[in-house]
Amino acid sequence: MLNPRLPAIWYGADYNPEQWPEAVWAEDVRLIQRAAMNCATIGVFSWVLLQPGPDRWDFGWFDRVIEGLAGGGLSVILATPTAAPPAWLCRAHPEILPVDAGGRRLWWGSRRHYCPNSPAYREAAREIACRLAERYGAHPSVVLWHIDNEYGKVCYCDQCATAFRSWLQDRYGSLPALNDAWRTAFWSQAYDDWEEILPPRATPSFHNPGQVLDFRRFVSDSYLGCFLEQKAVIRDHSPQVPVTTNFMGWFKGADYWSWAPHLDVISWDSYPPPGAPPYLPAAWHDLMRSLKRQPFLLMEQSPSQVNWMPCNRPHPPGALRLQSMQTLARGADGICYFQFRQSSGGPEQFHAGIVPHAGAERSRVFAEVAELGAQLHSLGSRTTGAEIRARVAIVFDWASWWAMEQPPMITAELSYREEILRYYRAFWSLNVAVDFVRPTDPLDRYAMVVAPVLRIVTEEIAGNFERFVRGGGALLLTFGSGLTDGNDRAHLGGYPGLLRELFGIWIEELDPLCDDAAEQAGGTVGECTCRRWCDAIHLEGATALATYRSGFCAGLPAITEHRCGEGKALYIGTAPDDAALAALLAGYAAPLDITAPLQVPSGVEAVQRWSGGQPLTWVLNHTRDEATIRLPEPVRDLLTGRDLAGDVQLASQDALLLGSLED
Amino acid sequence: MLNPRLPAIWYGADYNPEQWPEAVWAEDVRLIQRAAMNCATIGVFSWVLLQPGPDRWDFGWFDRVIEGLAGGGLSVILATPTAAPPAWLCRAHPEILPVDAGGRRLWWGSRRHYCPNSPAYREAAREIACRLAERYGAHPSVVLWHIDNEYGKVCYCDQCATAFRSWLQDRYGSLPALNDAWRTAFWSQAYDDWEEILPPRATPSFHNPGQVLDFRRFVSDSYLGCFLEQKAVIRDHSPQVPVTTNFMGWFKGADYWSWAPHLDVISWDSYPPPGAPPYLPAAWHDLMRSLKRQPFLLMEQSPSQVNWMPCNRPHPPGALRLQSMQTLARGADGICYFQFRQSSGGPEQFHAGIVPHAGAERSRVFAEVAELGAQLHSLGSRTTGAEIRARVAIVFDWASWWAMEQPPMITAELSYREEILRYYRAFWSLNVAVDFVRPTDPLDRYAMVVAPVLRIVTEEIAGNFERFVRGGGALLLTFGSGLTDGNDRAHLGGYPGLLRELFGIWIEELDPLCDDAAEQAGGTVGECTCRRWCDAIHLEGATALATYRSGFCAGLPAITEHRCGEGKALYIGTAPDDAALAALLAGYAAPLDITAPLQVPSGVEAVQRWSGGQPLTWVLNHTRDEATIRLPEPVRDLLTGRDLAGDVQLASQDALLLGSLED
Amino acid sequence: MLNPRLPAIWYGADYNPEQWPEAVWAEDVRLIQRAAMNCATIGVFSWVLLQPGPDRWDFGWFDRVIEGLAGGGLSVILATPTAAPPAWLCRAHPEILPVDAGGRRLWWGSRRHYCPNSPAYREAAREIACRLAERYGAHPSVVLWHIDNEYGKVCYCDQCATAFRSWLQDRYGSLPALNDAWRTAFWSQAYDDWEEILPPRATPSFHNPGQVLDFRRFVSDSYLGCFLEQKAVIRDHSPQVPVTTNFMGWFKGADYWSWAPHLDVISWDSYPPPGAPPYLPAAWHDLMRSLKRQPFLLMEQSPSQVNWMPCNRPHPPGALRLQSMQTLARGADGICYFQFRQSSGGPEQFHAGIVPHAGAERSRVFAEVAELGAQLHSLGSRTTGAEIRARVAIVFDWASWWAMEQPPMITAELSYREEILRYYRAFWSLNVAVDFVRPTDPLDRYAMVVAPVLRIVTEEIAGNFERFVRGGGALLLTFGSGLTDGNDRAHLGGYPGLLRELFGIWIEELDPLCDDAAEQAGGTVGECTCRRWCDAIHLEGATALATYRSGFCAGLPAITEHRCGEGKALYIGTAPDDAALAALLAGYAAPLDITAPLQVPSGVEAVQRWSGGQPLTWVLNHTRDEATIRLPEPVRDLLTGRDLAGDVQLASQDALLLGSLED
Repeated sequence: MLNPRLPAIWYGADYNPEQWPEAVWAEDVRLIQRAAMNCATIGVFSWVLLQPGPDRWDFGWFDRVIEGLAGGGLSVILATPTAAPPAWLCRAHPEILPVDAGGRRLWWGSRRHYCPNSPAYREAAREIACRLAERYGAHPSVVLWHIDNEYGKVCYCDQCATAFRSWLQDRYGSLPALNDAWRTAFWSQAYDDWEEILPPRATPSFHNPGQVLDFRRFVSDSYLGCFLEQKAVIRDHSPQVPVTTNFMGWFKGADYWSWAPHLDVISWDSYPPPGAPPYLPAAWHDLMRSLKRQPFLLMEQSPSQVNWMPCNRPHPPGALRLQSMQTLARGADGICYFQFRQSSGGPEQFHAGIVPHAGAERSRVFAEVAELGAQLHSLGSRTTGAEIRARVAIVFDWASWWAMEQPPMITAELSYREEILRYYRAFWSLNVAVDFVRPTDPLDRYAMVVAPVLRIVTEEIAGNFERFVRGGGALLLTFGSGLTDGNDRAHLGGYPGLLRELFGIWIEELDPLCDDAAEQAGGTVGECTCRRWCDAIHLEGATALATYRSGFCAGLPAITEHRCGEGKALYIGTAPDDAALAALLAGYAAPLDITAPLQVPSGVEAVQRWSGGQPLTWVLNHTRDEATIRLPEPVRDLLTGRDLAGDVQLASQDALLLGSLED
Repeated sequence: MLNPRLPAIWYGADYNPEQWPEAVWAEDVRLIQRAAMNCATIGVFSWVLLQPGPDRWDFGWFDRVIEGLAGGGLSVILATPTAAPPAWLCRAHPEILPVDAGGRRLWWGSRRHYCPNSPAYREAAREIACRLAERYGAHPSVVLWHIDNEYGKVCYCDQCATAFRSWLQDRYGSLPALNDAWRTAFWSQAYDDWEEILPPRATPSFHNPGQVLDFRRFVSDSYLGCFLEQKAVIRDHSPQVPVTTNFMGWFKGADYWSWAPHLDVISWDSYPPPGAPPYLPAAWHDLMRSLKRQPFLLMEQSPSQVNWMPCNRPHPPGALRLQSMQTLARGADGICYFQFRQSSGGPEQFHAGIVPHAGAERSRVFAEVAELGAQLHSLGSRTTGAEIRARVAIVFDWASWWAMEQPPMITAELSYREEILRYYRAFWSLNVAVDFVRPTDPLDRYAMVVAPVLRIVTEEIAGNFERFVRGGGALLLTFGSGLTDGNDRAHLGGYPGLLRELFGIWIEELDPLCDDAAEQAGGTVGECTCRRWCDAIHLEGATALATYRSGFCAGLPAITEHRCGEGKALYIGTAPDDAALAALLAGYAAPLDITAPLQVPSGVEAVQRWSGGQPLTWVLNHTRDEATIRLPEPVRDLLTGRDLAGDVQLASQDALLLGSLED
Repeated sequence: MLNPRLPAIWYGADYNPEQWPEAVWAEDVRLIQRAAMNCATIGVFSWVLLQPGPDRWDFGWFDRVIEGLAGGGLSVILATPTAAPPAWLCRAHPEILPVDAGGRRLWWGSRRHYCPNSPAYREAAREIACRLAERYGAHPSVVLWHIDNEYGKVCYCDQCATAFRSWLQDRYGSLPALNDAWRTAFWSQAYDDWEEILPPRATPSFHNPGQVLDFRRFVSDSYLGCFLEQKAVIRDHSPQVPVTTNFMGWFKGADYWSWAPHLDVISWDSYPPPGAPPYLPAAWHDLMRSLKRQPFLLMEQSPSQVNWMPCNRPHPPGALRLQSMQTLARGADGICYFQFRQSSGGPEQFHAGIVPHAGAERSRVFAEVAELGAQLHSLGSRTTGAEIRARVAIVFDWASWWAMEQPPMITAELSYREEILRYYRAFWSLNVAVDFVRPTDPLDRYAMVVAPVLRIVTEEIAGNFERFVRGGGALLLTFGSGLTDGNDRAHLGGYPGLLRELFGIWIEELDPLCDDAAEQAGGTVGECTCRRWCDAIHLEGATALATYRSGFCAGLPAITEHRCGEGKALYIGTAPDDAALAALLAGYAAPLDITAPLQVPSGVEAVQRWSGGQPLTWVLNHTRDEATIRLPEPVRDLLTGRDLAGDVQLASQDALLLGSLED
């Protein structure tokens, strides 16, 4: 449960009334209520209106917004407005402005125009957070603190350089240790004085990859530092209210695993592109839920089109409800929108709002939002707090991602997220529940763990994996794994380095296939088409399940299995086609009793959460046709209250939420 | 007539003899005469040679150039050389140099390397304009002043910031008014001090669209300010000679409607890419002619290939004459070239000249230019001053263009010019004469007005449109219109905002089709294929002429008609295919008696100008084949002097200029 | 012979042991020996480890590296480490850092981060070169000095501006001469003070092409200046050891013709992309060999994949040997690799090494390198010093290349290298040996000379060509030639300017075909398809061998021949298809007795070097199939020692080195 003060499913929106005359605000509250919402997020970008000058504060209008919401029985998610410093602040402290890798200073007049390591920025941000916490921290309607907004952009300024050096001193203690970690001996890159170290600014040729990897960690930590500073001042004045910041899914700019322990609630913003396959937001939700293995809050989704893609189409009818149900199914305890009333001007003018330019009254979008609200309202707290019981985990590791896609690259055609999705998609198509884990997490709760392209493998990871396999787990590793250590230094003696013995193989050479070229492989697991990469594998104890039939690696194993203790270590040295991969995984899943909650037709998603020992099963029809759902026993659809049994027809875009007949 | 001193069709070229030894100049005059030219443009980039240093002037060589031309009976178009400030001036005043949005200063050694708001630049430009006007302003051969050259590039320097603030103060008077106009309340963009306001320099995310729109207006006005300063000093010393600057067609960098009243003569530079369809330069000419609804001067066209495209092919034989005839047909009273003698070096070295590197004597290009010159000479002043009588107007609005293509965009696949051209092309294929108008222009002289993608609709525009329709006009509006007001703030209550009542519809949602996707629509106007955009239209008094048969808007009206007063308001919520659109427009044109001057085969262009109450009809065969022209009555071809009647064969690339037998 | 101290084929690698603990070094020497290598290159990027601070020197470890190699009987190629200045040096002298055309300073942390005209850099570079030369210049194992590494990148800083001015003063003496050379009269570009002249930094529009051409010359000379400064201090202390720097094939950044006289040995780095056709590296080798018409050293090739392409595939088995044999065949006396032991970290981490991450023992790559080493070792000095006897030369001219591809361009689709390769490929397919020459080189040793796209033709070149033809040579010139003089100013009166009379033609117009469009031509030389460009040629004494059948130039000659003195001047006004071109060249080659050393099937390369009056013939099977080689007389394969006669089968990727039975 996100906050016991609001035990139902949270349903709300970013609400930015400062864009409208106060006369509109009362109407807003009525419309929020009519949409069956129970909360609203305020203040996200309100800095300049709350603090119009260095020593000028104006909380009056904000008081009235909050009282209006509270008066309407609505809870408040209170944002600190620090994602967009006012012009007056930037003008007084130009060093707040971020600088790009080429030394170009960026300007105000947009958003996120600040350096996370600017002392002046940090002080001003702490101050306004403090004022807000003092004033509203004990307000009974405030149910969540939302710090800043979508932390991210990279800055390369001198303040960052100074902070980076300090971060490196903490990490390495001495320059020899840093020089060794970064392997600076080549290209004359060794450092003799901490002051010589720079962010990876524009250079004539490739950067040192160790420097870049650490800088990525440092940037993530820099923003985490911003968050923690605000959290601390908020905690002082508002100890009872949980704190979050809104994440962005598998966002490359921050290692969310390292952030998660510091957030009371995970919240995030989901903007699947129109036409995106349904497994894509499913993967995002699963990752966000896995960060704390707790229900999360969807802080933002668009009620219809967005405005920042090259071409922004509206949601077709029904799409909003289906994607919202999927969000709940995948672990959300709340669903919010950006934004309530569509801006009449400014940079988000043509981003959809729940109340569109045409007005709420005759609006399809408003009607859909309100209808969904009513349905969620009818569920009460039936689903909140319910857990997902996954017996499969996929390893998601920001460091491996960063290292794998950092020039110079083995191949620029490889996408870490695409490889993660390759395995996720296979399980999704089998309706098998999946958690994401970091490679050092305890794995004993899982029957099967998949680690795609886990480039970086440390001693700790290797030990964790070995324990898992010896204990009976099925561990699947792919090409591009075990190449390097925690500083991205190559493991010598053959890849996958520290995992060679566990997998009973060694890899001599790496062949990235270019331009979507394909090779063939086959064996006891059947035939498969191989793309992206082929490892030249040599067996040292493992068994070949498939062998390359063509290409540079022809004759060498493509897929191997090694039994070790009670478990199995499966290695896939290429990117197999979807059908071959699904068959392979299904073959492994069956004996491990990894199953779907319900057998459903292709394109229909079945997901289960458990509440009070009882399963709740969402069935979501993503296809364009009606689907027949065969129910093994009578159940009740909690969305409609109907009891169902036998073959049930589910319309395209429609959803069921199956509980027991007692529900 | 451009200038009574030179009543014939002007025929000349940019003439830059400073590139050649004086020995060549006499030969140049002979060749200009041999080409039957009557004028030459001089001085366009001659600054450093006229003023080699801060207080050094050298007009001697320029005197000799002018006397040489005058002695040959040639008129002079006298340019101020201010498009390329000398190196010495930039070195003395580096603040003259322009700065890009990222803060990068650009350097001299090219052209257009100046900030239009630099006081040092402006003073120097005024001074040289003044010197030229003093010295040559009363010279009897000077027939036109040509200020600067192709005004355009954007600068973001601190001088521009200062000037922008001053421009905004004039526009808005107060910061609250500006904050309201720009809708700065969101993203914390509100301004509390004029000094906080910047040009839209590089930022981490989207700019405020109000700021960008106003900055575009400001840049246009900044260059207009440069022009007006020079014009004023020239007027002082040369009150009799008209003043122009050379425009660039539908150039995005300046709102030529606001410039036109300040020019005595519209002149412009036409460079259709090789293989361009003939309606493209036709549209350009019609726009340029419409700026003052007066004959214009084609200041530059290339005698053959240019040098700035990715691949620069020569004009095939005959192309130059055909495009020149089209220029005359569309309203020109003069045709000039860039440039007379091809540069032997420098940045325009491989741009064609009338005298090519190989020399004039054996040159096809020179021969074509001279043959055309003889033909034009034979026309005397028969065509000059003749007017185009268009009963159709297309609204062309720079503000809507700017706003529609400014990120964040509803769809980046939408091109304002493409949509303008969609309608222009339909009329062109019907040989219907078209004027362009600004949306606030009086419309009573037209039977039909088309406003494609007119995003910005003010009260004034709405009133103008309503008067037009009520008075019996047929007004056609398309998708993307009436979205916003003059500050690009959304109209609430449904698009097209202030035009809802006039069109009897309201639009709830906008569906930009992506990637050239297509939907179908059909109804009483037949079937049509819809691309780019579909509006979700609801009727409020209008009748649906076509309904979407597929897609997001399936079942909703695609094309509607609303009778209002004596007229009709037609709304097209998509981009129809060419055939459907031509049929639709033909259906509207017929009852309004909007007709072609002559029925000609497809690909043949027929255009009429009226002189002394008599029509002059150009017939231009743009096809690759001979065409049969059916003449309803006997006429004389003024180009050959032949009398023609009945069926006449017109060779590919050939032209007729039909007058009465008395001509 | 590269150096009499090491008369065998040089076989070695870049060896960078500073990346590894000293414990590894002894193992390295054993592995180098096991690979049958006889030399190693050290020090390439070792600056910061040799000089850790301004006045700190550490040669101890370097002494031990050299003694280890020497103790193993290995020769040393000693590099100066000046391609990567240490961070401490850049921090003390930020003016060392290079600046791009937009004024953006680049930073250290990569490589090549220096301005070649920085006095501080030059002084520091001279000093370390001097220290190395003093210490190791007389060491008996040092066989070659290798200065810096891959000279190249362009800098636009103020130091470069100053140096450029001084270079221009030397070239032109006076500003009027410079203004005339650059044709600055247009666009107001004339200079009145040397201080006004800048490098071609970012500007709003095109640069002056004369300025850009001279700046390219200046940049090449700037780096040559760096080289010569180091060479001078090395000569002082190491007069016996030859000096080189490693070139990069047909690298656009430096005119290697002007460098070659200053190098004792030409060395270069060859990195053909995977799947490159075999004639591509063949052309590179021939150009590099031609620079001094002496055997060269291949300083770097990769043992397998590289790391800087978008997708980096390993060499398939056998490819390394075949490309190495081709290198020898084309004139190498030594073959080295980058690098010996694959880096475990840093920016070249996934660039292949002879000792891969997996270790040498079980490595296919190491085995191939060692097997090749054994084979080369068995050849002793049999091939070293052997010469290529080419009777055909292709003109390769950096100035024409620079000018042709400098915006604004006649067509951006034209590639100078592609046109060079068009002719090279034709001769390669005929197995005809080719030298490259500069246009002013003596040509009397050749029977045929081909000058593709020789834009720049000076009086000296014209005289040289005329002497060649009058003396009986066959000279072939193509479109795009003779357009301009040495300052890239157009030749007037018709192209090809000074060569009009020699070729008996004049060209009126240039038609660059766009988007791979094709026209047809035909005549006594058969039919051909024309792409890229068609010249509008007029005959003035020449005979048309082919005439355009289509397009802008239809009816005009496409290929012409003019007899002049004893020779023939052949002009090809287009880019003919390969088959037509090969037939045309074969027709010219036959009567001139230009023949292949051996008749071999298509895709098999036959190349001859001469040693002591005896031919050595390499036969290289680049096809995927076994090839039958018909030997006209019995020979010995020096690679295997087998005597061969009659029809011999040569496996795919295999090579023969045929000598006489006495060899």
